[in-house]
Amino acid sequence: MSRPQIHDVGLRDGLQMEKAQVPFDTKIRWIRTLIDSGVDMIQAGSFVHPKLVPQMADSDQLFREILSDKRADVLLSGLVLNEKGLERGLACGVELFCMGVSASQTHSLKNTRMTTEQALAQILSMASMAEEEGRSVQVSVQSAFGCGYEGPIETKKVLAIVDAYLDAGFRNISLADTAGHADPKRVTELFNSIRALDERVETACHFHDTYGLGIANSMAALDAGVTCFEASFAALGGCPFTAVAGGNVCTEDLVHLFQRMGLRTDIRLDRLVHLAGEVAEFFGRDLPGNVYKTGPIPSDPRSEP
Amino acid sequence: MSRPQIHDVGLRDGLQMEKAQVPFDTKIRWIRTLIDSGVDMIQAGSFVHPKLVPQMADSDQLFREILSDKRADVLLSGLVLNEKGLERGLACGVELFCMGVSASQTHSLKNTRMTTEQALAQILSMASMAEEEGRSVQVSVQSAFGCGYEGPIETKKVLAIVDAYLDAGFRNISLADTAGHADPKRVTELFNSIRALDERVETACHFHDTYGLGIANSMAALDAGVTCFEASFAALGGCPFTAVAGGNVCTEDLVHLFQRMGLRTDIRLDRLVHLAGEVAEFFGRDLPGNVYKTGPIPSDPRSEP
Repeated sequence: MSRPQIHDVGLRDGLQMEKAQVPFDTKIRWIRTLIDSGVDMIQAGSFVHPKLVPQMADSDQLFREILSDKRADVLLSGLVLNEKGLERGLACGVELFCMGVSASQTHSLKNTRMTTEQALAQILSMASMAEEEGRSVQVSVQSAFGCGYEGPIETKKVLAIVDAYLDAGFRNISLADTAGHADPKRVTELFNSIRALDERVETACHFHDTYGLGIANSMAALDAGVTCFEASFAALGGCPFTAVAGGNVCTEDLVHLFQRMGLRTDIRLDRLVHLAGEVAEFFGRDLPGNVYKTGPIPSDPRSEP
Repeated sequence: MSRPQIHDVGLRDGLQMEKAQVPFDTKIRWIRTLIDSGVDMIQAGSFVHPKLVPQMADSDQLFREILSDKRADVLLSGLVLNEKGLERGLACGVELFCMGVSASQTHSLKNTRMTTEQALAQILSMASMAEEEGRSVQVSVQSAFGCGYEGPIETKKVLAIVDAYLDAGFRNISLADTAGHADPKRVTELFNSIRALDERVETACHFHDTYGLGIANSMAALDAGVTCFEASFAALGGCPFTAVAGGNVCTEDLVHLFQRMGLRTDIRLDRLVHLAGEVAEFFGRDLPGNVYKTGPIPSDPRSEP
């Protein structure tokens, strides 16, 4: 098994679901804790119209503040949906640009008012612009494992988008399970199919835990050679108005799993656990993560004081 | 992959954690729903002193009632801890006797006041008695993946117990992750080690979801050739007084996963989901299962009315 990288997307994919506005200073503190913990990438925000997603209105300012004194070994990423967002991200210093296309025609039309083909052309152009400016780029396929509107998504639809990315020279590719439909067998199949297209591909995964399969899917991805794992601290991202745990895979639970298997023991799990407790307190509710409630499994309780 | 069997242990391992006494008729209704759903084995209770576990006081009566008109293709199992319990189980018709020994000396002493070696001798004798009476027997290793008191458990301690079982001719062997310490890599290693002892072994697994790894561990067990999966309907078994989801792997979530992969599509998931809803209502709280809240992943939403 390779050394899995953690890309925390809680500030973006997590907070955009929350009604309660998180103050700027609180976001800064949470990002600094994530940086301290030793995760590899942190998605600090997205560049969308503030009227559409008010939680992301301070993204530009967040990037500027954090980048003013950030350690070089942690990358700050931002999600962009269009050229206007790309311009903003370039201006405030985003290091890793994340952008993607939905493999579901219906999802694409609802989300972007473009067909998958139109959206793909736009993303390829934006990705080139970002690279020309010397930034890193990760391109993704959304709804890669199924769609809430369309149901199952054919492998060939996913591979067609991946093929276009590879043809254009983009090899950092994420598959997003937007609706939480992935299962471990499908995860293995799809990532194997992608590796068969180009052995040099660097794959990332983005799972939601809607049906309780997030951690199992992450394990399958690890076994299939995926190197980057997108997850949310405190398991943010579920719908706060229902009991459904539809959020991203929980960062601290995933790191805990990796560490049980001897991987990424360099990450400070205690910082992540403490952060999740603070987040639960901020929102005033229990969050779906496990390890922030239980603490990590003691490796040798007899040796404790 | 083989055809995984489901052994629901919620009536026993789940209810013994609950303060609220479940009335006899309610238990009967829940068991009948489980039988209807098509799971393979149902642990209807244990035979312990009613003062120690009041929830299990009606076990004898439950077995008699259900066995009076039960379908032959569903097995009713009971947990026994000592000879007195075995006698009661034999008298009321238990079809599959479950009994085990802890690989943790501390856990064994606290739970049974016997060392692992003493407990093993007793269990081997009880298992022989049950077989002589024509009943099926499953022997288990508790704390096989780690112990809340001792921490990690050496492989050789687990294999010594398994060896003794195999030597005595008992090949239906369950590994129980009593404290929830298992991780997928360890699951693979340990079940592979057991298969290396005797290829004819029939393995079962019993995972707790304390640290959010239950489903991932079940996947690893499936890949390692485990054929029987112990799980609790409605994810019963967590401590009702804390927010920790320490219960058994959730039956309906596990069946849902299997069905996503084309396995056990004969089981009526809808019955299990409905049952979990009823259980949540009975106890008046949200339970940690996912699928009873979300419903199963629609395989083709366009085909729905």
